[in-house]
Amino acid sequence: MMMDIAQFRENAKKIIDLIADYYSNIETYPVKSQIQPGDIKNALPVAAPTQGENFDNILLDFNKLIMPGLTHWQSPNFFAYFNSNTSFESILGEFLTASLGQQCFSWATSPAAAELEETVMNWLRQLIGLPEDFQGVIQDTASTATLTSLITAREKFSDYSINSTGFAAQPVWRIYCSSEAHSSIEKAVKIAGFGKQNLVKIELNADFSINTADLRKKINADIESGFKPLAIVSALGTTGSLAIDSIKECGKISREYGLWHHVDAAHAGTALVLPEMRYMIEGIENVDTFVFNPHKWMFTNFDFSAYFVRDKGSLIQTFEILPEYLKTNVDNDVNNYRDWGIQLGRRFRSLKMWFILRSMGTEQIRNKIREHISFAEYLENRIGDNPDFEMLTPRSLNLVCFRFNPYERNLNESDLNKLNETLVENINASGKIFLSHTKLNGKYTLRMVTGQTYSELQHVSSAWDLIENIAKDILN
Amino acid sequence: MMMDIAQFRENAKKIIDLIADYYSNIETYPVKSQIQPGDIKNALPVAAPTQGENFDNILLDFNKLIMPGLTHWQSPNFFAYFNSNTSFESILGEFLTASLGQQCFSWATSPAAAELEETVMNWLRQLIGLPEDFQGVIQDTASTATLTSLITAREKFSDYSINSTGFAAQPVWRIYCSSEAHSSIEKAVKIAGFGKQNLVKIELNADFSINTADLRKKINADIESGFKPLAIVSALGTTGSLAIDSIKECGKISREYGLWHHVDAAHAGTALVLPEMRYMIEGIENVDTFVFNPHKWMFTNFDFSAYFVRDKGSLIQTFEILPEYLKTNVDNDVNNYRDWGIQLGRRFRSLKMWFILRSMGTEQIRNKIREHISFAEYLENRIGDNPDFEMLTPRSLNLVCFRFNPYERNLNESDLNKLNETLVENINASGKIFLSHTKLNGKYTLRMVTGQTYSELQHVSSAWDLIENIAKDILN
Repeated sequence: MMMDIAQFRENAKKIIDLIADYYSNIETYPVKSQIQPGDIKNALPVAAPTQGENFDNILLDFNKLIMPGLTHWQSPNFFAYFNSNTSFESILGEFLTASLGQQCFSWATSPAAAELEETVMNWLRQLIGLPEDFQGVIQDTASTATLTSLITAREKFSDYSINSTGFAAQPVWRIYCSSEAHSSIEKAVKIAGFGKQNLVKIELNADFSINTADLRKKINADIESGFKPLAIVSALGTTGSLAIDSIKECGKISREYGLWHHVDAAHAGTALVLPEMRYMIEGIENVDTFVFNPHKWMFTNFDFSAYFVRDKGSLIQTFEILPEYLKTNVDNDVNNYRDWGIQLGRRFRSLKMWFILRSMGTEQIRNKIREHISFAEYLENRIGDNPDFEMLTPRSLNLVCFRFNPYERNLNESDLNKLNETLVENINASGKIFLSHTKLNGKYTLRMVTGQTYSELQHVSSAWDLIENIAKDILN
Repeated sequence: MMMDIAQFRENAKKIIDLIADYYSNIETYPVKSQIQPGDIKNALPVAAPTQGENFDNILLDFNKLIMPGLTHWQSPNFFAYFNSNTSFESILGEFLTASLGQQCFSWATSPAAAELEETVMNWLRQLIGLPEDFQGVIQDTASTATLTSLITAREKFSDYSINSTGFAAQPVWRIYCSSEAHSSIEKAVKIAGFGKQNLVKIELNADFSINTADLRKKINADIESGFKPLAIVSALGTTGSLAIDSIKECGKISREYGLWHHVDAAHAGTALVLPEMRYMIEGIENVDTFVFNPHKWMFTNFDFSAYFVRDKGSLIQTFEILPEYLKTNVDNDVNNYRDWGIQLGRRFRSLKMWFILRSMGTEQIRNKIREHISFAEYLENRIGDNPDFEMLTPRSLNLVCFRFNPYERNLNESDLNKLNETLVENINASGKIFLSHTKLNGKYTLRMVTGQTYSELQHVSSAWDLIENIAKDILN
C-alpha cells in the first residue's frame, strides 16, 4: 500500500537520520565518486517491481548502491566547477515545498506562492543592490533566464513580431559576448534561431574580461556588412576564471547602438551582497536584464535562479498565453508567473528563499561570503609563496586559477599541460578533494572555488597541502 | 548562525509534524484559497531581516500568513485543472534529493544520478508500454519537452543547420496540431522562431480529437502554397476535454509526408500503465518523441516530465555543448544529460521516482489509476441520472466535462454560459471542492478531474451532491 501519514512520520525520521549522518560523515567519502561507468546501472533490476517493497530495503539499497555513485557537492572539500550549495534552511524549505504540492503557474493556483515570490525577489533585489525599477522572477537556471532574455530582445527589437510571423525575411541579427562567456549563451542563441555563427565572440583583455574596444569594432563592422546587432551579454564573472566584464562600458555601448543588454552573473552575482563589491555593477542603469543563481553560492539548493527585468511588459508580451481554462477574474491585478518565462508549471520555490533569508539574516550571509573570498585570498598567498606554482590570472572573488610549473625545470607549454592534467587526475583520484580545470590562453589551468557552505579555513589549507604533496610526488 | 546538524534534526521533526498535521487536516481548509490579491504581500516586511530569526517564528508565520494563501492541490476534494499529485514516497525522495545537493549535468558530477535516471526512465518506458527503441530523459515540464522536440525537428529537417546559421533564407516551416491542443505548443512555436501564424490549428471531430482528414487537407494546401510542413503534434488527451487524437492516423500522415511526430500525453499518458488503455498508442511506431508527466497523475511531486525519444543522436546533436571545463575522459561511454535538453543544471529527480516505483510497485499504481477512472465513470452516471445536467463530451479517462442545463427551462446558450459561470464561482467560493472550466464549442464547460492521490469514492460522491445542491440554490 501507499505510504500513509503514520508511515510517513516514521520513514521521514529515517530520512532525517540518513541526512544528519551523511552531513556528519561527509568528509569520509571520496569527494569525487570513484565508480566506473555502468557500475550502478548494472546493479539495478531491469524493471520496476510488481509488488511494493519495504521502505527500509529501499534505504538499504540507497546506501549500498547509490551512495558510492555520488560526487559530494556539499563536502567542504569540494572546490570544483562552481558551488551548488545547500543549507539546512533551504533543505527544509524544499521539503515543505514538495509536501504542499503547490502548482504555481497562476496567482489563483497558489496565491501564497505568487505573493511570496514577489516579496523574496524584492528582498533579493535589495540585497544585491539592484535599482528599484528591476522586478524579479524565479527561473530554474541561468540557461533558461538567458534564453528568456534573448527571446524577449528578439520580440522587442524586431520590426514585426517574430512570435507571430517567425523569422522569414528578417535581417540577420547578431549577439555579442566575450569568448570566455558561458556555453549557455551559445545554446540560447541556437535555440532562439539566431544561429551560432551570429554569436560574435569578442576578444579579451589580459584579465580575460571583454575587450570593449573590440566589441565596438565588431559591432561597427557588422553594421557595415549589413548585419543587425541585437544584444550584448556581459559576464559578471566568466566561467573559466570569473573575469568581470565592464558592465559600465558594455552598457554605454548598448545604449549608443540601441542594443539589449543582459548580464549573466550566475555565480559571482552573490558577491554583490557585499557593498564593497558593488563597483561590479557600476553602469547598471544601462542593463535590461540580470540573472544570478542563489543556487550556486547563496546556500539555496538547486534550482533557484533569480532573473531581474527592467521592462516587465516586454517580458510578458513575449511569453504570455491566455487560454480559456487559465482565465481568472483577478488576472489584471496579480502576477501570473507562467507568463514570465518558458514553462507553464512552476514549483513553490520562494519558500526556501524565505527560510534562508529569515533564518540566516543578511548580515550572516554577508559574513559567509566575505569569509569565502578570504579563503581564496589565502590560497593566492600560498600559491605566491611556492615557486613551483603560478597564478594564471589574478584571483577573482572566491576563485583561484593556477598551475604547477616546477621551478628550474623549464618545461615547455605542452609538457606543462600534460603535467597539470596528471596533477588534476591524481588529486581527484585521491578522493580527498575535488577540483576542476579549464584552459586559459591554451594553458591547462587548475581552478579552486572556495565557496562551499561548509568549508572552513582548515579545509582550504589542508587542500593546499595535499596539492603540494601530490605535485611533489609526481616530480619524484 | 546557520542551522547546524543538531538544529536540523530538531527543526526537521517540526516540519514533519507540520506536514503530517497538514495532511491530517487537509479537508478542513477551503480547497481554493479565499484570500484577495495583496493580502499576503502587504503582510510581509519590505526587506529581509539583518539578523537571523528563530526557526519557530518562521513556522508560526508560515501557518499564519502563508497557509491561508494556499490552494490545496493535495486535497482529495481538488478536482480542478489536472492533478499535480504528490505521494509521501515522492516527498521523501525530494527531501533526500535536496539534502544530497547533487548537480546532475554530467555523468561525472553525479554518476549515481545519471545511471539511476537511465534506469528509472527504462522502468517507466516499460510501465507505459513504449517500444524498446525509445530512450528517456527527465525534463522539468511538458512545455520544455515539447519545445525540445520542435527544436530537434527544426535542426534535423532543415537543409542546413539552423543551430549554426540561424533562420535566414529558410523556407517557411509549418507545424500542425488540433485547435484543442495545449497552449505550450504555441509557446514553443513562438520561442523556436517558427511564428504563431505557422502553427496550423486543425479542425476537430465531434469528440474534440483531431480531424485527420482536415490535417491532410491543410498539409496539402500548405505544400501547394510553398510552405514546408515540419511536424505534427498530437494530443494524447487534449487540455480541455482529454480527447484522444489518433496517434495511428497522425503517425501515418507524418510518415507519408516525411514529418516529425511528437505526442503530448502530459496528463493522459499515465493511463498507459493500464494494458487495456494501450489502444491509445496504436501507431506508436510512427512517433518520434513522446512526453508524459508523472508529476500530474502518477504520484510524483512536481517537477518530473518523462520525455522519450527514438533518435537520441538527433537530440544530442541539437543540444550538445562541450566546453573545456566540462570535458571528462568518460564522455563517450556515458549519458551526459545536459546535452539532452535546454538547461545545463539538473536536479537528482530520478531518486523520487525510484522511491515511488519500488515502494508502491506497479500493480498498486495500476489499481489506483483504474480506481481514478472508475470515479469519473461514477460521475458520468450521476450526471446521466440528473436531467438538469448534461455531459458536453463523452467521459475520457478520469475527466468529465458537463454543464448545468435545467430541465424545462429552455435557456439559450448565452444564459447557459452565464449560469454555469455562476455555478463554478459559487462552488469554488464554498471552499468545499475546487473545479475549473473550459469552453467547448463556445459552451461554458465545467470540468472535474478525478485523479487526486487521496481522493476516494466518498469525496467524489459528496462533491457531486454539493454541485447538485449549489445548482438548486442558484435556481431558487
